[in-house]
Amino acid sequence: MAVNLPLELPELRPVAGVRIATAAAGIKYPGRTDLVAFELAAGTQCAAVFTRNAFCAAPVVVARDHLNAATPRLLLINSGNANAGTGESGHQDALRSCGLLASVVGCQINEVLPFSTGVIGESLPMDKIETAIPRLAAGFGADHWDEAARGIMTTDTLPKGVSRQVVIDGDLVTITAIAKGSGMICPNMATMLAYVATDANITAELLQRCLQHAVDRSFNAVSVDGDTSTNDACVLMATGQSMTTVIDDDQSEAYKQLCQAVTEVCIVLAQAIVRDGEGATKFITIDVEGGESEVACRQVAYTVAHSPLVKTAFFASDPNWGRILAAVGRAGVEGLDVGRVAIYLDDVCIVCDGGRAAEYAEAAGDAVMKQDEITVRIVLGEGPHRAQLWTCDFSYDYVRINAEYRT
Amino acid sequence: MAVNLPLELPELRPVAGVRIATAAAGIKYPGRTDLVAFELAAGTQCAAVFTRNAFCAAPVVVARDHLNAATPRLLLINSGNANAGTGESGHQDALRSCGLLASVVGCQINEVLPFSTGVIGESLPMDKIETAIPRLAAGFGADHWDEAARGIMTTDTLPKGVSRQVVIDGDLVTITAIAKGSGMICPNMATMLAYVATDANITAELLQRCLQHAVDRSFNAVSVDGDTSTNDACVLMATGQSMTTVIDDDQSEAYKQLCQAVTEVCIVLAQAIVRDGEGATKFITIDVEGGESEVACRQVAYTVAHSPLVKTAFFASDPNWGRILAAVGRAGVEGLDVGRVAIYLDDVCIVCDGGRAAEYAEAAGDAVMKQDEITVRIVLGEGPHRAQLWTCDFSYDYVRINAEYRT
Repeated sequence: MAVNLPLELPELRPVAGVRIATAAAGIKYPGRTDLVAFELAAGTQCAAVFTRNAFCAAPVVVARDHLNAATPRLLLINSGNANAGTGESGHQDALRSCGLLASVVGCQINEVLPFSTGVIGESLPMDKIETAIPRLAAGFGADHWDEAARGIMTTDTLPKGVSRQVVIDGDLVTITAIAKGSGMICPNMATMLAYVATDANITAELLQRCLQHAVDRSFNAVSVDGDTSTNDACVLMATGQSMTTVIDDDQSEAYKQLCQAVTEVCIVLAQAIVRDGEGATKFITIDVEGGESEVACRQVAYTVAHSPLVKTAFFASDPNWGRILAAVGRAGVEGLDVGRVAIYLDDVCIVCDGGRAAEYAEAAGDAVMKQDEITVRIVLGEGPHRAQLWTCDFSYDYVRINAEYRT
Repeated sequence: MAVNLPLELPELRPVAGVRIATAAAGIKYPGRTDLVAFELAAGTQCAAVFTRNAFCAAPVVVARDHLNAATPRLLLINSGNANAGTGESGHQDALRSCGLLASVVGCQINEVLPFSTGVIGESLPMDKIETAIPRLAAGFGADHWDEAARGIMTTDTLPKGVSRQVVIDGDLVTITAIAKGSGMICPNMATMLAYVATDANITAELLQRCLQHAVDRSFNAVSVDGDTSTNDACVLMATGQSMTTVIDDDQSEAYKQLCQAVTEVCIVLAQAIVRDGEGATKFITIDVEGGESEVACRQVAYTVAHSPLVKTAFFASDPNWGRILAAVGRAGVEGLDVGRVAIYLDDVCIVCDGGRAAEYAEAAGDAVMKQDEITVRIVLGEGPHRAQLWTCDFSYDYVRINAEYRT
């Protein structure tokens, strides 16, 4: 029951230099696509960010190592099993998965980046992966984005993907991206699983900068439940095949255009993850402004977004603004003058000068809370900074989904 | 559906020098006791700690002011309305409540400490309080602890109270205490509403120190939902009537005995609040040991206790230890070597050296998770420090209670 997320994927345009293969290996469920590979043409640059969770999964460790050692030719992704909390044998399994694909395709093992998503703490079924990989490697094609978007899903109810085209220096540049994520969502300097490909031509250094810019404004600005996954990763691939000139100056118009387009793509996917948040019935934008720093604004926004009391009030369509106010108050902002705080539900001012707004009528708050898309605006009155994030409500279904998962 | 909390209050012994009155003012529900007053004999010392939420309620501000200005003779507590987020008019209402009681009883207004608990953001119904106060003041008696424990309840399903007696320097000292709390529970340097009275004879300075010691080990070590209330307060009153000698040395055996007894009383009440946590079906003890500091251990314990994924796994009796491990990993402990971490469910080792323990069989984890009292022990392997806290699971009923509250 995702919030205003289209049932069908939009058209996902092929990206010159990227081919995709998918297979059903039976990792968790029989007959479900759960193995996806990206094959990148020679000359493709690859940037990536990973989870900051200290317990990062085996594939995260291996992907980081391989990315440092070589230029990736292949990404190998499985759903249904996170290969996290699996110790040294999990590390070996991640390496072996890469090795299996490398030997079939004919490249070095460290040219393969592995990714896993699913249940934590169980070993990868290597026999199933070994059986499936030759089948997988036989099926590469440019048009398999849709199936890839489905293949990386876990508790997601809908696949998530988006394409954008933009003309840069007279060349038509395509960006196509997919992501998965629904629970354990509170990315920290990284994201859930997301794969963004473009045929733009850009240096490795600027590609990494572009990715960090996009991620900070998208995946790092969402929360479903405040839990940061062990397997978060976001990869940005640039094949260079659409442009003769390389983007190598971060002050250039070309860089800015590409960066903006990539950021837009990432925001669409980040919001899609929140819209498909486990049990979500509402999509909430939290705008905090007037802070002494962006950090302080984010602190307030996350405290409100993570409060189970605020989230259940949204689920109940109850304008119980006292819970929002209490969350602002406990966010730990040094020296906050609560007498200046104002809070709005969409355009309805509910709190002014730190207390209930004189003109506020509960019917107005009720009307906003009944919507399935709501903006909470919190004005701190301390300075010029702001932050924005997206979150969802907390429903019976959140409990059901997470109580039933694994069983 | 509280977890192993007795349906009946234990015997709550009168404390010499403390009289209590209760009344039904109809603040939120008609006919329910919602007004409680404590009258303290001359010579009583009073110590208190309050919420650190920046949006503290009007009565918290007034109680702090009055406590600084005078020695309290009366405490006035209402349930059903928190008088929080009510701005200047809320401040006036809190003062006026004190004034009404002071004029009937015949004392100074700043000798009355006000406390409120209930819904945030609505004005106190001053007409109802004004009508009820003469009735309240006519009914003081030494034996009204039970009714007071009921009168301060909000979403609590059961009243919470405890008595202890201890012989100090040959004198029989009594400690009796009540508390309320069920949701918006994550005390920060203070507590929910709790009132602890003793007839011990102790200096004001040592009384405050004793209270802080007890609160740090009890109310400041519990969490239901990670939300810190705007109205938390804990008051420790010492009438001095049982002892001829005053306790004035914190190295004395008498101080240590009293402090230990007060701490025990507070732990019973703090655990009762968790047992009666909104929707709770399980009582969870989280022990973190082997940390480089107590702060680091508390950080890990709170991150695990607040994780909705961990809490729903407990509700489902699912030994999904990957969620515990992921929470430890994102707790932000600087330089944590995850390869040394071990996690136990009661005596069952589920994680060893940062991964699934070799000897772990899921049946053993299942058996522990089916219990209604579970200890999670997390060994960081970094140093000698430890921390303990108590929390509960996250159920459908948590969502129901908080979605329905106010309606």
